[in-house]
Amino acid sequence: MKKIPSAEDKNAGLRYLLEPASVALIGASDDPTRIGGRPLRYMLGEGFAGTIYPVNPNRDVVQGLKVYSSILDTPESVDCAIIAVPAKIVAQTLEDCASMGVKSAIVFSSGFAEIGGPDGEAMQAQLSGISERTGIRILGPNCLGVLSFKSRFFATFSSSGDGGYPKPGSLAIISQSGAYGTHLYAVARDWGLGVSHVITTGNECDVDVAECIGWAAEADEIKVIAAYAEGIKNGPALLKSLELARANNKPVIFMKVGRSKEGAAAAASHTASLAGADEIYDAVFSQYGVYRADTTEKMLDIAYACTAGVFPTGKRIGLVTISGGVGVQMADYSNKMGLDVAPMPKEAQAYLKKKLPFASALNPVDTTAQFFNDFSLVGDNFTIMLEHGRYDIVVAFFTMAANSPYVIEPLLKELDAIRKAFPDRLIMLSLLGSPETVARYRNAGFLTFEDPCRAIAAAAALVEYGVSFEGVGISASDDTVDARRLKELPNKALSEWESRELLAHAGISVVEGKLVNSADEAAEAAAALGCPVVMKINGADISHKTEIGGVELNVAAPDEARRLYDELLSRVNKNAPNTKPSGVIVAPMISGGVETILGIQVDPVFGPAIMFGLGGVFVEVFEDVIFRLAPFSRDEAMKMILGIKGGKLLQGVRGGPPSDIDALADALVALSQFAAGHADTLASVDVNPFVVLPKGQGAVALDCLVVPKDADAG
Amino acid sequence: MKKIPSAEDKNAGLRYLLEPASVALIGASDDPTRIGGRPLRYMLGEGFAGTIYPVNPNRDVVQGLKVYSSILDTPESVDCAIIAVPAKIVAQTLEDCASMGVKSAIVFSSGFAEIGGPDGEAMQAQLSGISERTGIRILGPNCLGVLSFKSRFFATFSSSGDGGYPKPGSLAIISQSGAYGTHLYAVARDWGLGVSHVITTGNECDVDVAECIGWAAEADEIKVIAAYAEGIKNGPALLKSLELARANNKPVIFMKVGRSKEGAAAAASHTASLAGADEIYDAVFSQYGVYRADTTEKMLDIAYACTAGVFPTGKRIGLVTISGGVGVQMADYSNKMGLDVAPMPKEAQAYLKKKLPFASALNPVDTTAQFFNDFSLVGDNFTIMLEHGRYDIVVAFFTMAANSPYVIEPLLKELDAIRKAFPDRLIMLSLLGSPETVARYRNAGFLTFEDPCRAIAAAAALVEYGVSFEGVGISASDDTVDARRLKELPNKALSEWESRELLAHAGISVVEGKLVNSADEAAEAAAALGCPVVMKINGADISHKTEIGGVELNVAAPDEARRLYDELLSRVNKNAPNTKPSGVIVAPMISGGVETILGIQVDPVFGPAIMFGLGGVFVEVFEDVIFRLAPFSRDEAMKMILGIKGGKLLQGVRGGPPSDIDALADALVALSQFAAGHADTLASVDVNPFVVLPKGQGAVALDCLVVPKDADAG
Repeated sequence: MKKIPSAEDKNAGLRYLLEPASVALIGASDDPTRIGGRPLRYMLGEGFAGTIYPVNPNRDVVQGLKVYSSILDTPESVDCAIIAVPAKIVAQTLEDCASMGVKSAIVFSSGFAEIGGPDGEAMQAQLSGISERTGIRILGPNCLGVLSFKSRFFATFSSSGDGGYPKPGSLAIISQSGAYGTHLYAVARDWGLGVSHVITTGNECDVDVAECIGWAAEADEIKVIAAYAEGIKNGPALLKSLELARANNKPVIFMKVGRSKEGAAAAASHTASLAGADEIYDAVFSQYGVYRADTTEKMLDIAYACTAGVFPTGKRIGLVTISGGVGVQMADYSNKMGLDVAPMPKEAQAYLKKKLPFASALNPVDTTAQFFNDFSLVGDNFTIMLEHGRYDIVVAFFTMAANSPYVIEPLLKELDAIRKAFPDRLIMLSLLGSPETVARYRNAGFLTFEDPCRAIAAAAALVEYGVSFEGVGISASDDTVDARRLKELPNKALSEWESRELLAHAGISVVEGKLVNSADEAAEAAAALGCPVVMKINGADISHKTEIGGVELNVAAPDEARRLYDELLSRVNKNAPNTKPSGVIVAPMISGGVETILGIQVDPVFGPAIMFGLGGVFVEVFEDVIFRLAPFSRDEAMKMILGIKGGKLLQGVRGGPPSDIDALADALVALSQFAAGHADTLASVDVNPFVVLPKGQGAVALDCLVVPKDADAG
Repeated sequence: MKKIPSAEDKNAGLRYLLEPASVALIGASDDPTRIGGRPLRYMLGEGFAGTIYPVNPNRDVVQGLKVYSSILDTPESVDCAIIAVPAKIVAQTLEDCASMGVKSAIVFSSGFAEIGGPDGEAMQAQLSGISERTGIRILGPNCLGVLSFKSRFFATFSSSGDGGYPKPGSLAIISQSGAYGTHLYAVARDWGLGVSHVITTGNECDVDVAECIGWAAEADEIKVIAAYAEGIKNGPALLKSLELARANNKPVIFMKVGRSKEGAAAAASHTASLAGADEIYDAVFSQYGVYRADTTEKMLDIAYACTAGVFPTGKRIGLVTISGGVGVQMADYSNKMGLDVAPMPKEAQAYLKKKLPFASALNPVDTTAQFFNDFSLVGDNFTIMLEHGRYDIVVAFFTMAANSPYVIEPLLKELDAIRKAFPDRLIMLSLLGSPETVARYRNAGFLTFEDPCRAIAAAAALVEYGVSFEGVGISASDDTVDARRLKELPNKALSEWESRELLAHAGISVVEGKLVNSADEAAEAAAALGCPVVMKINGADISHKTEIGGVELNVAAPDEARRLYDELLSRVNKNAPNTKPSGVIVAPMISGGVETILGIQVDPVFGPAIMFGLGGVFVEVFEDVIFRLAPFSRDEAMKMILGIKGGKLLQGVRGGPPSDIDALADALVALSQFAAGHADTLASVDVNPFVVLPKGQGAVALDCLVVPKDADAG
């Protein structure tokens, strides 16, 4: 064994894997269509500049290169070994590589965890062990390798390079699925969208999608990252990488599949990945400014739009059209995408009308086909819109009119001047033309789309990035958990009363109440709190209070409370004889307000997350809930509140008063801090209902339960 | 004046307009890029077989043809005159045409209703008058004319034909917007989708989109209809045409723009069309099996998929993939599109596993890339899926693997046999290949899509067509209005009590109640009905009962009712001294059940429509309401109930009882009959709340108001 790479080397490992200076191809084949032949053909054909050592015990020469009978015979310790041998000898091959000081390996071979069953799992665990022990970085197994365009390192057996590989671009594709990663690449290539890397991570015995995103976030030649995963194993690593990408203003577009029941089942039978709850992925992507795509088209439309490097922070969209009808369609679609089709200022409209008497100047600005009779009109129109209309985005529909040889040159000249004058605005063109015409606009640096609606959808995504990039760091200080707010979580099941105390201490407003242990105490409490009151059985082993007759609502007077105390206890004893009640909680009835639900759910991958939604049927019928990873800032809490459809209700509808959203946001932040502070010891928290009273009157938990982790099974 | 065409000629008018045997071009130009030159160039260049008479007082010859100085000088009365003259002489030109017996005219000229103001309107009304008086059919004004591919009649000045026009296909494009119609055509052409006609109707002084759809529904060469409108003037004509299209199994894809506030404003400033309420269009399209598209991509994806002529009536989708990752994505997307990713039967799975040991056989069927090593596997796999899995739809993801020269021939052979064995199943391929490769699959008769998700979305639309085509005629008998149920509507404002009686007579269940006129009567009524009761002021001029103190809820006893009667009346007299109450309604309090809202809204274009939604915040916060044109069948009523998101609530959630949906459906049908029977005299009906009790217990209106048309202003 030559050496065990140090931790520093481990960090550098991805570079050896993705940009190696020397490569061994183990299982090299003379047949350029075979798994061990394709990488060689691609690298030789595309001019990989590094050294290549083919390895195959049964041959002397493959594809014109001298062959080594074993990795142990190669004259230097290469940066990367590409391994295309049967599954059963992969482990020994990796051991040999490690002993030669090989820094990284790409394992094409399948037959590991993806086949299911303990054998595959064990064989894969062996590979993970080799990586951990020796420091060799491993991509795969069961992967389609790496395409690295600048260094012309094409370590793949996918047929994606059969027509040759084009020049590098700025999009990195990082995918667990090899077939999807290379498919996505091939579509991008056919669209003329340049790619810098395709990294397929397969079963991820070592290198995973999360780590690759982090690497891409720091690679200068990469501007946009498109990722695909069926599940993430290392949640914190993904969060770190996403934060890095955001800090470096690199948009990440993520396709996380397995959202549906059927999809999740298919994913489980595919890469055997442990997926966190799907709604938590929504939370992660929302919090880290990641666009979640569900089709290839959205992935690449947005990736393409991102390459322009303009990320608006406002939603004002100006629409230019030479067809009134398409203008209406664009206005509808902008509205659907949440953009603001703000009207042009009155004076600007008047000015435009003077220049273009037939035009409709409101927004959409319908210039009619007359637009291209005098190109100075184009410049004037855009200038007025951008300067006076202050649009963050302009989408212009030119359809086939832009295809005319008389139009291209003068139009590009006008547009170029506009772009230089307003470099921070997003300008998108909707054109219909020959590939050559379209290429002329694109080569001049303009974003072009055939369908104006696809341009608008992409623009809406870019605004989300813009807002996210701008917001980096704003909320960091709010996120610190205040230790004084946290008590140690008992290592046992808790009663409602104990749960109340913990949450109240953590800063979550809980309805006033008293724990009583006798009929007289009940009457006293009712008198002190003011009737009507509610009476509820309390106990760490009681979970369905109502079902066992353990709740009395609307108790009208202290005397009634006295009488009901005994009745309630005897009902509980009868209905649930094995439970051990510890008193009765007396609390005032709260009327009015909007019922909401708050909760903590500890995700196996991402840790504690906060759930929020309106109460009752809103959760079940409308599935109107939202999640966020804890802890989060007050800003994020506000986004949650306004992020559910029912958020309107809290803002006040039907002349009803607006609710105390401030108090609700405070509670969400406090709960998120409680969750983060108890991340390791908490299973779940359920606050239901949490009643939000009218503005200025606060919000209170009426019922709650904290479930520590170890108490979960009990 | 030669002759006024008979009614029969009028019906034939569209044929003269769209397939003329002889044409006059008025305003003919020698310049083939000008408005009066382009149609001539296109027709001459593309081989239009009819006679062409150019008309221009200032020339002798244009583009090689003899010119006539006036339409009055042409030697025969042509089928169609193409009019490219200034707006101010269009009317006289049309009069001349009519006097010559010209059967139809296409008016390119703009400067009519679309310019706004009374002048444009008046000029356009003049054209409508000429058409009505003389029977000449007029397309336009302000339109881009007609493209008719079989007869090579290209009466347009759009530049869409600058590269020549391809062979005819089976898609008809019918669009109010000329620019959008020709844009849509150009995109279809670039996609290789064959078009039979493009008809642009512009300002619709005579011929409109509705009539053209009806014509296309009966034209043999047309299989699919894509329509675009900003507003429909003649609702009944549209319904008739849509019904005809459905009866002839011709799918209609409709882009109705102006859904958003901004879009509607832009539409108003464009073709000056009177649009009905947008939600009524949703109702129309839903009832007539029309897909409402909001992007060009959806229009053409679905149009293309329709050309295969297979319209599944079931939602079972089988997914075949050579990439597990894409399989997951396809399963997610199918689920999102409402399709049923049903698992393969167990035995079929076992059989498939034997054939393809590495495959995952559940559904998606992940064949892995190994699929193409032995092509008999392809045939076996599809046969098992279609025969045993009974899938209505199969979408197969082959990506670039299908591009290999070794794959195309044998794959097509297997697929062709499958298609012949299962002609009623929808088979779609997702391929990535050169245009030539894709053309080979398409020419062999297979639907191909680059993006599998777009195939899935189109498949979902095709199922809707299949269900709609199958359902034609089923509900016709239910739709007849039972005259015995209808009373004549009084020509005045109605009180709640009068409204109750009308609706009850029409078969809508209304809560029991008594109209009382004294405190004693109130007490008697309360005793007879059983307390608690509600007391409400009644009166034809009282609209906000609660606001003026005219409602008492939870009246606990007859004595209290007696006391409150006077209190209530004096409050109303004080708060609304100008109203004339006519008694107080006493009714039992109804507790439990789900509150819904029923209503009638009379649309200016489409007539009476029924509105249904859950009550309270559901309508306002979630906008969870649905509309249907009246009258409709019980089936349609059921679709409404299950069509709102809150429909789940009525089916029973959280262990709550299911509601009496049958009673609700009965009420909706009865209300729809009431609406249809009073279509001409009704302004609106509001039934709110309509409480649906648990299953078997019925449903009742607690409050209602019928507003006759003429009473509306009063």
